[in-house]
Amino acid sequence: MRRTKIKDLLAHGEIGAKVTVKGWVRTFRSNRFIALNDGSTINNLQAVVDFENTSEDLLKRLTTSAAVSIEGTILESQGKGQRIEIEVENLEILGDADPDEYPLQPKKHSLEFLREKAHLRPRTQVMSAVYRVRNALAYGIHKFFNEKGFVYMHTPIITGSDAEGAGETFRVSTIDPKNPPLGEDGEVDYKEDFFGKPVNLSVSGQLEAEVGAMALGDVYTFGPTFRAENSNTSRHLAEFWMIEPEMAFYDLVDNMDLAEEMIKYLIDYAMEQCPEDLEFLNQRYAQEEKTKPQNQRAELGLLERLKFVSDNNFERLTYTEAIEVLRRSKPFKKGKFKYPVEWGVDLSSEHERYLVEKEYKKPVILTDYPKEIKSFYMKQNEDGKTVAAMDVLFPGIGEIIGGSQREENLEKLVKRMEEMDVPQEELWWYLELRKFGTAPHSGFGLGFERIVLFVTGMGNIRDVIPFPRAPKSADF
Amino acid sequence: MRRTKIKDLLAHGEIGAKVTVKGWVRTFRSNRFIALNDGSTINNLQAVVDFENTSEDLLKRLTTSAAVSIEGTILESQGKGQRIEIEVENLEILGDADPDEYPLQPKKHSLEFLREKAHLRPRTQVMSAVYRVRNALAYGIHKFFNEKGFVYMHTPIITGSDAEGAGETFRVSTIDPKNPPLGEDGEVDYKEDFFGKPVNLSVSGQLEAEVGAMALGDVYTFGPTFRAENSNTSRHLAEFWMIEPEMAFYDLVDNMDLAEEMIKYLIDYAMEQCPEDLEFLNQRYAQEEKTKPQNQRAELGLLERLKFVSDNNFERLTYTEAIEVLRRSKPFKKGKFKYPVEWGVDLSSEHERYLVEKEYKKPVILTDYPKEIKSFYMKQNEDGKTVAAMDVLFPGIGEIIGGSQREENLEKLVKRMEEMDVPQEELWWYLELRKFGTAPHSGFGLGFERIVLFVTGMGNIRDVIPFPRAPKSADF
Repeated sequence: MRRTKIKDLLAHGEIGAKVTVKGWVRTFRSNRFIALNDGSTINNLQAVVDFENTSEDLLKRLTTSAAVSIEGTILESQGKGQRIEIEVENLEILGDADPDEYPLQPKKHSLEFLREKAHLRPRTQVMSAVYRVRNALAYGIHKFFNEKGFVYMHTPIITGSDAEGAGETFRVSTIDPKNPPLGEDGEVDYKEDFFGKPVNLSVSGQLEAEVGAMALGDVYTFGPTFRAENSNTSRHLAEFWMIEPEMAFYDLVDNMDLAEEMIKYLIDYAMEQCPEDLEFLNQRYAQEEKTKPQNQRAELGLLERLKFVSDNNFERLTYTEAIEVLRRSKPFKKGKFKYPVEWGVDLSSEHERYLVEKEYKKPVILTDYPKEIKSFYMKQNEDGKTVAAMDVLFPGIGEIIGGSQREENLEKLVKRMEEMDVPQEELWWYLELRKFGTAPHSGFGLGFERIVLFVTGMGNIRDVIPFPRAPKSADF
Repeated sequence: MRRTKIKDLLAHGEIGAKVTVKGWVRTFRSNRFIALNDGSTINNLQAVVDFENTSEDLLKRLTTSAAVSIEGTILESQGKGQRIEIEVENLEILGDADPDEYPLQPKKHSLEFLREKAHLRPRTQVMSAVYRVRNALAYGIHKFFNEKGFVYMHTPIITGSDAEGAGETFRVSTIDPKNPPLGEDGEVDYKEDFFGKPVNLSVSGQLEAEVGAMALGDVYTFGPTFRAENSNTSRHLAEFWMIEPEMAFYDLVDNMDLAEEMIKYLIDYAMEQCPEDLEFLNQRYAQEEKTKPQNQRAELGLLERLKFVSDNNFERLTYTEAIEVLRRSKPFKKGKFKYPVEWGVDLSSEHERYLVEKEYKKPVILTDYPKEIKSFYMKQNEDGKTVAAMDVLFPGIGEIIGGSQREENLEKLVKRMEEMDVPQEELWWYLELRKFGTAPHSGFGLGFERIVLFVTGMGNIRDVIPFPRAPKSADF
C-alpha cells in the first residue's frame, strides 16, 4: 500500500480507513504510544501499538529516530490536541537508532550543539520548522515575481568581475596550488588556469541582471553569493543566497514600492502556508525572549511582529533627514551613541536600530545616501552629493535590502568609475548597456537568509541555512 | 502614466485607450512604423508615428535598439497578424543606439557571434525566447515539487566532499596563490586557508539532499554545480544548474515514475506558458533541420516532438536487456558501432541514440546497470552484479536524468566504499544517516540546461544559459 503523508492524514484522514504511514519515531511512551513524524508537518501522528500482541524485541526497537513503516486503521483520537490516531496492525522497523549512540534524544539541545549535527538536526522540531518556512519563502519569491511577469535569470557564479568593487572574494582555480605556473614577470600565470584568467565566486549577480533588464524588462536572480570576509558573527555567512530583481523603466520610488510589496507578500505567504510551524517558532521565540533581561525583550511576539510589518507602511525618509532625526534624539544628546552621527558617515547598527526600533517602531527605508559611501553604479542625484540609493532596515536584523536606481548615463557612469578606480576594461559590456539603448532602471538585493531569520525569529543565521559556511567551517 | 507591458497590451489592450509603453526599437520602416519590443513577449507592438509632425532629428534616432517611451492611443490594426497598434502622440528617446556602432542590426546573426555579445543577445528574438522558456521551466520545476509537498533545500556550493567520487573539481581558496603557506611536510598548509581545509565547488548536492530526505521526507535541490572538465563540447558546461530530488521511502520504480511525471509536467507547462516563443523556436528548428542532409534530419518538428514525449510512456528496460537489443541490432551485426557492445561496458552515445532514436523512437529509461560503472552510493541489487540505477535517455540529448535507489544498508555501503576507495572519514555524516533510522530512499539529478536544450530545440548548451562558463571562457 502506498504511504500517506502525515500532513495529509491529519488533515483529511477518514475514520476507519486503512493506511500505511512511514516516518521516524519522535518518542515512544507507556510501551504503547508512538509519536511518529515524517517531516511533512511539524505535527506527529500518534500510533497506538497493541503491546500485548507485539514482541518485546520489537517494542524495544521503537527508539527515538528509528525509521518505521506502519499499517493500521484510523481512529478518532481520545487524546487532546489531535483529531485522529492510528491503531497499529502491522509494524516494521526500517532502520534502528541505538539510543546509546543516537545523539539527539528527546530533550532540548542547544542550537550550537545541533549545528555540529547538521546531518541530523532537520529531525528536530525547530530545525524542520525552519526548513519548511525557508522553503515557503523561497517558493513565495518565485511565485511573487512569476505572477508579475519577471524572468528568472541565472547569473554566473564564477566570474572575472567583482560587482561591488568591495568585499573579499574566493578565488576559483585548477592550477597546481603548490607550484603555480609563473609568467616572465614572476607572477602567477593565469593563462594556464582553467578559464585562462583569474576568476572568483560572485558577490552579486546585479551587473549581469542589468543585462537581462535591458532586454527582457523585469528580471530577478535567486542564487548563491559569496563573501570571503573573516567575520564570525550571527549575521554573516561566507555562502548565502540572494534575490536580486532588476527592472527596466523603474525609478527609485517604483523600486521602493516593489521591495515593500515583495516583503509583505513573503510574510503573508509564509503565515498562510506554515501556520503550525510559525506557531511553534512563535512559542520558541517567546521562551527565548523570557531569558533576556526585561529591558532587552522585544515588545512584540514573533507572529505579532510579522503581522505588524505586513499591515503597516514602511517609513520612508532620506539619509539626510535620518541624520537630523538622529542628532535630535535622546541617545545622541546624552552621548549614548558609540559612533559619530554627522552627514557623510555610514550609519552604524546602533543608529539603524534606533530609527527602526525606537523612533518609528517599524521598517524604515532610507534613501539618497552620500555618494561617497555607496557603489559606483548608483544613479547620481542632481545635488551632486547623493545617489538614488535605498536601504530597507528591519527590526532585529538591520539592513535586509539594499538597492538603487542605476546610473544609466554613460558619461556620468564613466566619470564615477574613474573617481572610484573601478576598472573599465573588465566592465566594457556593462558600459555598452549605457551606450546602446540605455534607459532608467533600478533594482535591489535581498539577502535570503536575512528574511528567513526575520520570519522564523531565529537568532543566528547559521540556523536558517542547512549547511552554513563560515571561516574555518565547511563541514558536511 | 505608468507603463503597460506589451504582452498585456497585445492581449487585453482596449481600442481607444491611452497608454504609455516603453521598450526598444526592433525596426523602424517607411519613416512611420516602429516595431517596439519590451521583452515581455516575443511579439512587437506596432507604433505608428505621425512623421509629418515629428522632427526629422527624432525620426533619425529611431534606430534598432534605441530605447523609447511612447504615449499614444490604441487603434485597431490595419496590418496583418496583429490585433492592435498604437498611434504615437508623444515620443521620447530614452537612449540612442548609433547604427554605425550597434553590433546587432536586424539581420540574422550566427549564434557563435551572439555568444560574444552575451550582454546584448537577450535583445534578439531567438535568445529572448530561450530565456523566457528557461524561466518557465525553472518555475515549472518549483511548482511541480511544491504542489507535491517537497521541501526546496539549498545544499552547499563550497564543500569538502566530492559526491561523485569522480569528476574534476574547482578549488576554492583565499591563500596567497603565488606563495602558498607550506606545512612541515612541504605540502600546501590548508589550515591557513579560509575554511581551514581544502574545499571545492560542489559537483552535486545529492549527498546533502539525502540528509534532508531522511528527515523531511521529500526534498529537492535546484542550484549551480560545477565540473572542471576540459571538454569543449556543445553538451557540456563548467557551470550548470541541476535539480536533484531525493525522496524517503521511494524505491526505483517510484523514482522512475516521478522522473517521467516531472519531465512531462515541465514540457506541458512550457507549452502552456510560452506558446508564442515555442512557435518561433519551432520555426527556427525547422529551418535548421533544412540545412542538414536529408538522412540526418529529425523525423519530428520541435513542437511535435514535445507533444510526442508528453503523450507517450517512456520505454523502460534493464541495462542487460538493452545490451541484448543492441547485439541483435543491424548496426551491431554490420559492425557499424564504433564502441564495443558487451555486458559490463558503459554505453556510448551511439548506443543510446540507437535505442532512443531507432529502436524505440521515444525516451528510454535504462535500469540496473553493472555496479562497476556506477557510483558507490547506489543500492546493490540481490544479483551481486548490478545496482538499482536509472538513466533517462532523450532523443538528441542523450542522458537527461541519472538516478538510483540509494544503498540504505550501512554494512553494504561501507563495503562498497572500501572496494571503490571512497574515503569514509570525510563522509562520516553520510554514513550516520544509515546508522540512525535508515530507510529506503531514492533520487535523481536533472541537468537543467539539458531540458532547456530539449524544449527549445537549440543545438548548443551555451545558447540556453545567459553567461556560459567553459574552458578559457568566463567572460561577463
